[in-house]
Amino acid sequence: MRYKLTIEYDGTPYVGWQRQNNGPSVQGAIEAAGKKFCGHELSVRGAGRTDAGVHAFGQVAHADFERDWPAETVRNAINSYLGQAGERVVILSAEAVDEAFDARFSAVRRHYRYRIVNRRVPLALEKNRALWVQKPLDADAMHAAAQRLVGRHDFTTFRSVHCQAKNPVRTLDRLDVQRSGELVEIFATAKSFLHNQIRSFAGTLRLVGEGDWSADDVTAALEARDRAACGPVAGPEGLYFMKVDYEEEEG
Amino acid sequence: MRYKLTIEYDGTPYVGWQRQNNGPSVQGAIEAAGKKFCGHELSVRGAGRTDAGVHAFGQVAHADFERDWPAETVRNAINSYLGQAGERVVILSAEAVDEAFDARFSAVRRHYRYRIVNRRVPLALEKNRALWVQKPLDADAMHAAAQRLVGRHDFTTFRSVHCQAKNPVRTLDRLDVQRSGELVEIFATAKSFLHNQIRSFAGTLRLVGEGDWSADDVTAALEARDRAACGPVAGPEGLYFMKVDYEEEEG
Repeated sequence: MRYKLTIEYDGTPYVGWQRQNNGPSVQGAIEAAGKKFCGHELSVRGAGRTDAGVHAFGQVAHADFERDWPAETVRNAINSYLGQAGERVVILSAEAVDEAFDARFSAVRRHYRYRIVNRRVPLALEKNRALWVQKPLDADAMHAAAQRLVGRHDFTTFRSVHCQAKNPVRTLDRLDVQRSGELVEIFATAKSFLHNQIRSFAGTLRLVGEGDWSADDVTAALEARDRAACGPVAGPEGLYFMKVDYEEEEG
Repeated sequence: MRYKLTIEYDGTPYVGWQRQNNGPSVQGAIEAAGKKFCGHELSVRGAGRTDAGVHAFGQVAHADFERDWPAETVRNAINSYLGQAGERVVILSAEAVDEAFDARFSAVRRHYRYRIVNRRVPLALEKNRALWVQKPLDADAMHAAAQRLVGRHDFTTFRSVHCQAKNPVRTLDRLDVQRSGELVEIFATAKSFLHNQIRSFAGTLRLVGEGDWSADDVTAALEARDRAACGPVAGPEGLYFMKVDYEEEEG
């Protein structure tokens, strides 16, 4: 039976979502906990591969179990083994789904948030949970400039040189910037994103917020279709994978 | 010159505010960083002694420096040494004050917050930052019961047996309970609190929220003036020292 898993994690101690040889991964943690529960090898496939230090409030994955368990049992058992292992990963929900469901390929929209704490002094409680920016940010200017990026574009400028996608064209549905006190948040929504795309947006919009770039500079960077035209990529600690939408939920 | 320091910290890695022999303290971290800056021994005196694992968004302390530094220099230098030492402590502001100012004795009101995440599954991103309560809490019932504790009372029931205060009578100005999604927060304000008073309130109100106690049970516990009548003390991870008011700020 295939299960859809919705997952929260603190990305700080992990090399990223994906199983790798160089350290603990979120995927590996869930696979290990799941195997302890079901007794067989398990492959957990995520909707998106988050980098080291990137967090999730709503990553989605699917996994195939040989038996047909109640979904609550799957959730509780995996959480129990994750807790015993001291992992910073929790299954928020498990749901039995059709075998046609694929966490990655069935996704119709992905939602991310990028959190910046904008203040003079360093972070204590928000350390590793947000990007620290000292210089005062003009969030309104960031929001206005962000609108230059919304829509269907070749985002070559805003993707990692390691990005493996064949096509750099994506349709960005939303890129909003909002300030609440010392917190500046960037809300990004698209069917799919390129590697490092949101962190590239965040680093570029930071230049706008600090007054070094104009909205026209952002447009010029986009139109350059050249990675070298991008602002410095913002750190992983501010990025949160919030939610994935699937067609069956749109009904 | 005496400086008033406003301090944020993640209490997780500390034995508490106060310098102790059994591990790293917040007070000790600031004293060590301050000494590196000014070159002489430094005594940092806090407005309240938070326990191990308790956090602060606005602890206040005072410290006497032999020289008359610009307040920004004091703040930035201490933060720089705290950062180098990898401490989870930040000086939010430093302010030169009169020698009559005492962080503890000049305080006219202290504000705390207790955070509970109320959901079925364990915490990942909020681990060590909030109390996890699985059973659904009735926040309205908690708030109503909390009002039985507001005012001037003998709070013997709600203080640690280790509390060193001579007088168990305190005046509680505010004890509000509010829910926002899965977050249930308790807001507590008083001139001063007894040791473990807010965590004792939180543990007792949790019993109300879970439906095991009524508001009348809370009144009975208060009137018993007996530590044994208290609900189980809630964990330190949910408690945040938010703010201290001083007379000069009241205008």
